[in-house]
Amino acid sequence: MKNIYKNGQIVEGVITGIQPYGAFVSIDENTTGLIHISEISDDFVRDIRQYVAQGEQIIAKIIDVSDGPNQLRLSLKALNYSSRKIREDKEHKRSLVPESVLGFKSLDVKMPQWVAKKERPMVNVNLKHALLENDVMSYQDEVTRIHEMIHNKTGKGNDFLGWLDWADRYDKDEFDRIKVCAKRIREQADVLLVCGIGGSYLGARAAIEMIQGPYAQDDLEIIYIGNTFSSTSIVRILNYIKDKEVACNVISKSGTTTETALAFRLIREFMENKYGVDEASKRIYATTDAKNGLLKPLADQKGYETFVIPDDIGGRFSVITPVGLLPIAAAGIDIDAMMRGVKDATFELNNASLEANPAYVYAVVRRMMEAQGKDVEMFVSYESHLVFLAEWWKQLFGESEGKEGKGLLPASVNFSTDLHSMGQFVQDGKKVLFETVVLVDNPIEDAEVPFVDGDIDQLNYLSGKSLNWINQKAFEGTLEAHEVTGNVPNVILNIEKADAYNFGYLVYFFFKSLAMSVYMLDVNPFDQPGVEVYKKNMFKLLGKK
Amino acid sequence: MKNIYKNGQIVEGVITGIQPYGAFVSIDENTTGLIHISEISDDFVRDIRQYVAQGEQIIAKIIDVSDGPNQLRLSLKALNYSSRKIREDKEHKRSLVPESVLGFKSLDVKMPQWVAKKERPMVNVNLKHALLENDVMSYQDEVTRIHEMIHNKTGKGNDFLGWLDWADRYDKDEFDRIKVCAKRIREQADVLLVCGIGGSYLGARAAIEMIQGPYAQDDLEIIYIGNTFSSTSIVRILNYIKDKEVACNVISKSGTTTETALAFRLIREFMENKYGVDEASKRIYATTDAKNGLLKPLADQKGYETFVIPDDIGGRFSVITPVGLLPIAAAGIDIDAMMRGVKDATFELNNASLEANPAYVYAVVRRMMEAQGKDVEMFVSYESHLVFLAEWWKQLFGESEGKEGKGLLPASVNFSTDLHSMGQFVQDGKKVLFETVVLVDNPIEDAEVPFVDGDIDQLNYLSGKSLNWINQKAFEGTLEAHEVTGNVPNVILNIEKADAYNFGYLVYFFFKSLAMSVYMLDVNPFDQPGVEVYKKNMFKLLGKK
Repeated sequence: MKNIYKNGQIVEGVITGIQPYGAFVSIDENTTGLIHISEISDDFVRDIRQYVAQGEQIIAKIIDVSDGPNQLRLSLKALNYSSRKIREDKEHKRSLVPESVLGFKSLDVKMPQWVAKKERPMVNVNLKHALLENDVMSYQDEVTRIHEMIHNKTGKGNDFLGWLDWADRYDKDEFDRIKVCAKRIREQADVLLVCGIGGSYLGARAAIEMIQGPYAQDDLEIIYIGNTFSSTSIVRILNYIKDKEVACNVISKSGTTTETALAFRLIREFMENKYGVDEASKRIYATTDAKNGLLKPLADQKGYETFVIPDDIGGRFSVITPVGLLPIAAAGIDIDAMMRGVKDATFELNNASLEANPAYVYAVVRRMMEAQGKDVEMFVSYESHLVFLAEWWKQLFGESEGKEGKGLLPASVNFSTDLHSMGQFVQDGKKVLFETVVLVDNPIEDAEVPFVDGDIDQLNYLSGKSLNWINQKAFEGTLEAHEVTGNVPNVILNIEKADAYNFGYLVYFFFKSLAMSVYMLDVNPFDQPGVEVYKKNMFKLLGKK
Repeated sequence: MKNIYKNGQIVEGVITGIQPYGAFVSIDENTTGLIHISEISDDFVRDIRQYVAQGEQIIAKIIDVSDGPNQLRLSLKALNYSSRKIREDKEHKRSLVPESVLGFKSLDVKMPQWVAKKERPMVNVNLKHALLENDVMSYQDEVTRIHEMIHNKTGKGNDFLGWLDWADRYDKDEFDRIKVCAKRIREQADVLLVCGIGGSYLGARAAIEMIQGPYAQDDLEIIYIGNTFSSTSIVRILNYIKDKEVACNVISKSGTTTETALAFRLIREFMENKYGVDEASKRIYATTDAKNGLLKPLADQKGYETFVIPDDIGGRFSVITPVGLLPIAAAGIDIDAMMRGVKDATFELNNASLEANPAYVYAVVRRMMEAQGKDVEMFVSYESHLVFLAEWWKQLFGESEGKEGKGLLPASVNFSTDLHSMGQFVQDGKKVLFETVVLVDNPIEDAEVPFVDGDIDQLNYLSGKSLNWINQKAFEGTLEAHEVTGNVPNVILNIEKADAYNFGYLVYFFFKSLAMSVYMLDVNPFDQPGVEVYKKNMFKLLGKK
């Protein structure tokens, strides 16, 4: 690619990154420039941020094109009218947080090149506030080695890599049958009981709550059961559904998970009493092993519609299989779009290069945080309907790497809500954590602040502003508070929208990140030996033979 | 007190504690005995647990009464027929967890004397599984000093100790007015909007969800709003209530908390449009400062019923004031019983002695855990309706001690649900955490497992068993898995019932614990300076003058 720019030319650009030694400028899609600190002003420049701000539009003169195509040396002081004077203190402070960090593309040296591309990745990893002490790119060799281990299926637990190319492999006939059954459930029922635990409900719940939002006025209510032994919870749900039209999707690979099997026995009894055995069987859908276990023969005996849990995809990855897809489709969500997201992610995140693969960047940063002394990764979102995405994420990472005394403890908060509870600790408590913020650029719903005569509550300064704009400012203010005041690293993941496509993309992004991240610990990411211990102990106490 | 027992006498008792050097036996309400390891069997005894089990009824011979009244030396081997043989391996393993730990009173030397009393405390602290390396009692001097600091109000933040004797001081007329308004809300509305953030909603939500249980079929639905900037959340709630009869309790001391004030502006506009200004004002209840701030003049202008947030009780303690009481009463919960719980706790936990004060024992154990290298306290419950008790607890402790780079990070899980997600990490991940388990002895609801012909799901071995009994076994199996397999300390707090009285008692228990625990860190337990920083930054970005 030839350099189209010449020495002495005057160009327009946007400040996209500020480093101690200079400011980076985006000129066009393919071209970036650097204004060295010595080229900012005729005055002595101590802190570049006192002269230019993130996101600012500037005019500069090209002083050197010899660094190679698309990397220009620029000057402000060479243009008399551009040479800067020191700014007001107020401006300076404000520039610590860019006007809007959302969608911001930084050219930090620590940040790989894809971040600078015009077309941003579906999941944008912003490391500008991550307080990294080292260079992400220095991990490239290890990443390449593990990438090959993942794709050649030579690592630990490699018989559970079915999710890797699932988007190309899944059974299209079964997928169509899921859509038919989802439609039937919506006709049959007021309430769908999703009866499963762990990966057999968290993925569906994360998707449905994220995509539908809170207080979704859908005709079908979804109730999660079979995920607890709490007698109060089970009895209350059974009372609640007594006079409602119900359907049930029971999800269990073995059929022996006690929480699920027990609740399903109670539901089956209730539904068979209510509808008779034949009609009840038309309202029960079983997602289970293709052949083995206790649920499959029961389903066959009763004539339930059944869907298959693949052998090579573990529970915490199963949201992209019928385990997640049937409840998600029943909730009225477009699972075609969701699988397109999975498929695009499969393609786009299949790249060993950190420059090209944000999932691997996030994976590496997690390990770098650990190396910087952090024991806890705090999942942060600014939307209350992402609470179960956080719960799903906690299973994904906690169960994958919490082994052999290793791993980052996954925790979560929902801001700004929890700024008024956990915020104090996050900012000023023991320095054990870093934050991973999942930001949604475009909200499902928005509204303007109304104007009120008299302004007795003194909020008219916000009238005409959108609620989501205010939410963004809350994020930016918090980011500065936590990063600058609290010295807490923030890794920011942006997605465009809380829709089915982005959900599919995002879950695959996390799958790929975790495979890389956990292999970097030399741990099998795909088993969960610890979960068996409490069951074994419990079965003994229950007197199971 | 005279010793009524004599050397050579044969007595019955129950094994209540096993230590490496001997077994403790409860003989009667006032008398305990010790069987030294040398007195267990004629064989060489390596591990006492191979010979006797927790909770086992035994007959023993008194061999020495000279240790003083009520402390007997006992022998099994002195009675030929009592002398033990080594048990089956099965029995041995089983005895690692007592038949039922619930309500179990241990006589561990590390455990203060009150635990051994026949009448157990309302909040029973069981340290048997806490893997303590030191003696709780060694902290008595420090505890006494801080106890006096609390009660003489000489410590940091002492102008926020209003909760300490609130049960004796609260305004009884206002309390009666709360009950009247609660009744009126239930007549007026299908939905009560509780509009507040942090301490202004978490306490009420914790109480209502804990006491009513999940899917409570109450006539009044409660929706929490004013605790987020999420536009999707706010707009969805406003859509949801459009055609419903609503009332609103807005809760803000200053009236300037932006999340709450903004949502309240929208609600006010909606209600005044729906009902007209006069009727809307009869459906809006303001809990705010007695005189100052922006909400009080607005309430006065509109003629809202108002309730006072005391000056000397911080937000995270305010559940026992009108802040919590009005929504809790509106939900149909007995606030007289709740305040009786607070009052009894005020009396019973007003004791400097660790022997007599379980709240202080819990406070000390938290610091001991920290000294043993733990950075995270994981709140665990086995009832899904305690999820918001955990959220309330996280604010209480996180906001109180997360300062100056200090404190235990509060986190939470709900078992057995989360055993299938976070359980792997808790047991086998990095050893950064200990568990604080809040167990409810008696569930709100229970049911028996039905018998099913053919037993195709193989659960008939549980038929006739109660769900809560199974939940207890899940707890016991998990306890052994985490303590023995995972080496994770477990502090167990038992309460009798998830009712209003126990809720009131428990919150005061935690207040008293935290005051002691945080003063032990030499931190002001009652301020929250960090919470202000994000607000200041945000106001700047919002352009507030």
